[in-house]
Amino acid sequence: MKKVIKVKTDKLFTNITNEVSDFASSWGKSGIVNIFSKHTTLCIWCTEDELLHKLDVRFFLDKVAPRWKEPEGSHHNIKYMHDIISLRNETPADERINGHSHIRSMFFSSSETVPVDNGKLILGTYKNIFAIELDPVRDREIVCSFIEE
Amino acid sequence: MKKVIKVKTDKLFTNITNEVSDFASSWGKSGIVNIFSKHTTLCIWCTEDELLHKLDVRFFLDKVAPRWKEPEGSHHNIKYMHDIISLRNETPADERINGHSHIRSMFFSSSETVPVDNGKLILGTYKNIFAIELDPVRDREIVCSFIEE
Amino acid sequence: MKKVIKVKTDKLFTNITNEVSDFASSWGKSGIVNIFSKHTTLCIWCTEDELLHKLDVRFFLDKVAPRWKEPEGSHHNIKYMHDIISLRNETPADERINGHSHIRSMFFSSSETVPVDNGKLILGTYKNIFAIELDPVRDREIVCSFIEE
Repeated sequence: MKKVIKVKTDKLFTNITNEVSDFASSWGKSGIVNIFSKHTTLCIWCTEDELLHKLDVRFFLDKVAPRWKEPEGSHHNIKYMHDIISLRNETPADERINGHSHIRSMFFSSSETVPVDNGKLILGTYKNIFAIELDPVRDREIVCSFIEE
Repeated sequence: MKKVIKVKTDKLFTNITNEVSDFASSWGKSGIVNIFSKHTTLCIWCTEDELLHKLDVRFFLDKVAPRWKEPEGSHHNIKYMHDIISLRNETPADERINGHSHIRSMFFSSSETVPVDNGKLILGTYKNIFAIELDPVRDREIVCSFIEE
Repeated sequence: MKKVIKVKTDKLFTNITNEVSDFASSWGKSGIVNIFSKHTTLCIWCTEDELLHKLDVRFFLDKVAPRWKEPEGSHHNIKYMHDIISLRNETPADERINGHSHIRSMFFSSSETVPVDNGKLILGTYKNIFAIELDPVRDREIVCSFIEE
């Protein structure tokens, strides 16, 4: 069974646990569900839904992959190469500046796979399923594939 | 088929390859197995079982996400926001200090999925399956879901 | 259905989307495909196939996990522990120096799982499937497991 979640992501974290859980409930079988983002700068991540932890994640990403890099070399470059739009012939001049978003995606996954038991997600006490938006605001699609065991 | 591995993790790396391999063997079919941690600070990771490599991983985590951060700002803060327990109303005063454990989980996965051929894991020469404990010591549960192809 | 992709990886990025897509097409069903690397220093990653983004990834890896570390301690060590071959009794003296490759693997995954709909990969507009070679040049095997939903 496939189900699609459509979200307009204006925040870094969008908790999609309830949507996936409702799909699992209507499916009612046992196996796994793969929750997959169709987008390169939207990731899926299971973590705790605690505000201050989410703040740590934000600060960590800002540190390891800042939007503008420290000036480098004699040309004092602060751009990611991906954002040097003048070299990308097929790309419009007003393309989004999101080189940092792509690098940040290295810390998350395209998808998470979660076990399902008789229509119930097995997530433990603290795990929630999040869509992680690295380049807001966007209309996004997340594909949930339920596979019976 | 679902099987649960229960571990008391006192080490960063717990090799669970043999347990998963034994389950695969008793299952005897072909498909995949998803190995999933129910916990936010216990991850699953496939890597080489070589002691000095594991030391590199430990040093790397200590560097990129130390337990106490370098003092920041005029208040010289060294805590992860998650560890400022006085702001978390629902949390007991003796809560674990594990903000760094949550950030470290960004380098690993909630689960790994491994192919199975006639009851045998396909892992190649060097790959082993590990539970990565980022907040020891804990009683942990890992859920293995076997899915036939 | 299982299919194996054999590649000789002389580059950091090898785009394997077409191979996986062709397998999916011949399979013709709906479900998921898990694309798994049998090797500890070859990873699988879904990202955009844009040259300058790939350059950012290369520079990022060189920064966070350089081949030789900054000199540390009074012995000015620049080696990863994994590369101190003289301490690894079972290892030949001419073993590859790839401690950094193992650390770099923490930024990617052993496998990616992608939804399939009637023999077509669901990847969105920009997602491609790459083999990420962290220790070239090697003969590598990637196992694709197709699972019906």
